Amino acid sequence: MTGHPEDVINKNEKISLKPSTLLTPVPVVLISCQGNPDGAQPKPNLITVAWAGTINSEPPMVSISVRKSRYSHAQIMETREFVVNLVDQNLLQATDFCGVKSGQSIDKFAACQLTPIVAEKMQIAPAVAESPLTLSCHVTQVIELPSHDLFLAEIIAVQVRPNLFDRENRLRLDRAKLVAYAHGDYYSLGQQLGFFGYSIARPEVLQKRMNRTISKTTKKNPHRR
Amino acid sequence: MTGHPEDVINKNEKISLKPSTLLTPVPVVLISCQGNPDGAQPKPNLITVAWAGTINSEPPMVSISVRKSRYSHAQIMETREFVVNLVDQNLLQATDFCGVKSGQSIDKFAACQLTPIVAEKMQIAPAVAESPLTLSCHVTQVIELPSHDLFLAEIIAVQVRPNLFDRENRLRLDRAKLVAYAHGDYYSLGQQLGFFGYSIARPEVLQKRMNRTISKTTKKNPHRR
Repeated sequence: MTGHPEDVINKNEKISLKPSTLLTPVPVVLISCQGNPDGAQPKPNLITVAWAGTINSEPPMVSISVRKSRYSHAQIMETREFVVNLVDQNLLQATDFCGVKSGQSIDKFAACQLTPIVAEKMQIAPAVAESPLTLSCHVTQVIELPSHDLFLAEIIAVQVRPNLFDRENRLRLDRAKLVAYAHGDYYSLGQQLGFFGYSIARPEVLQKRMNRTISKTTKKNPHRR
Repeated sequence: MTGHPEDVINKNEKISLKPSTLLTPVPVVLISCQGNPDGAQPKPNLITVAWAGTINSEPPMVSISVRKSRYSHAQIMETREFVVNLVDQNLLQATDFCGVKSGQSIDKFAACQLTPIVAEKMQIAPAVAESPLTLSCHVTQVIELPSHDLFLAEIIAVQVRPNLFDRENRLRLDRAKLVAYAHGDYYSLGQQLGFFGYSIARPEVLQKRMNRTISKTTKKNPHRR
């Protein structure tokens, strides 16, 4: 890095950084699983993974990346199932805690005062009762990468907290206070800026779909055909 | 779905939904690539993918999911490279547009008034000059899934807009106005709620790391050891 970055204003002049995991923002997810890789009583466990994503639409699939050294890695390898628990602001502190502690030495459900409940279509992996939305996942493939194993999984059940539906029975995830992770920090979601397809939407659709103030950008619509 | 959801308050009572791609929020990314799958002149192209994620830490790797029918799919298969362009609020409208239009029929760079620039370490795939941060990616593996192909790729270069560094030369992605995608809507990032490890941080570290108001939750710290 040379010169003084803040004095450079040409947008085409970029500064090169060492390759790094800078895809941002990413979801914050709390994974619940259960198993007995040590041969002892199966115990429910929690792990926070920074690397998770949707990978396929039909059927819906997710991937999570877990280091081989993690206790939960052995549990998921054994049972081929896990639950993705979306994280809201109330769950954030527990989620952060589960990302820095190992489930081998402590009972994370107890330590975080969280409640394991039966997850739909799972043989053994529990869901976190306090999560607003949970995805029951069945592992279809494990791909070995240099530092992590990538678990590909099909979402076979979805369970949602009842108060996230409005009176017309529409799912209102915008009320869930979900958390995003960006470059080491956790953030709330802020203002709604648009919706999928808003760049080519007619003004009346724009007005209907934008719950909050329509920003100046979305009012002028150069791409509309 | 039975009864009236909004009247149910027991947090353990969940409503089941059809399996769906509900991992939320996810990043909004604009992929740039270039190739000539039709045998014509290689042309730079843009595609917005909803499904992208970090999958490995050392080396840094990402995955993107692209439908086989997409023009960019053939381009990436041919060149084995693409650039992930992070999306800020200024780029959002163009990004949405690139998610609903095909690059086979139109020149998306021109239609969106975006500038293709040389991306570090890429043979042919350009970066988007207007993006605050770009990741040059080399495909290492393609995994066929039912509706999408999953491209696993190593991040081999990172380029950042100079004004995202502060006077101490620290990368300040919190100033980039990045966008998140949640259940069909685009959102700004809101309040900083914590940082990785904040649940076990000492009060002085908490105070130093929290740029904005420390929330009530982070002040009481039941998990701190």
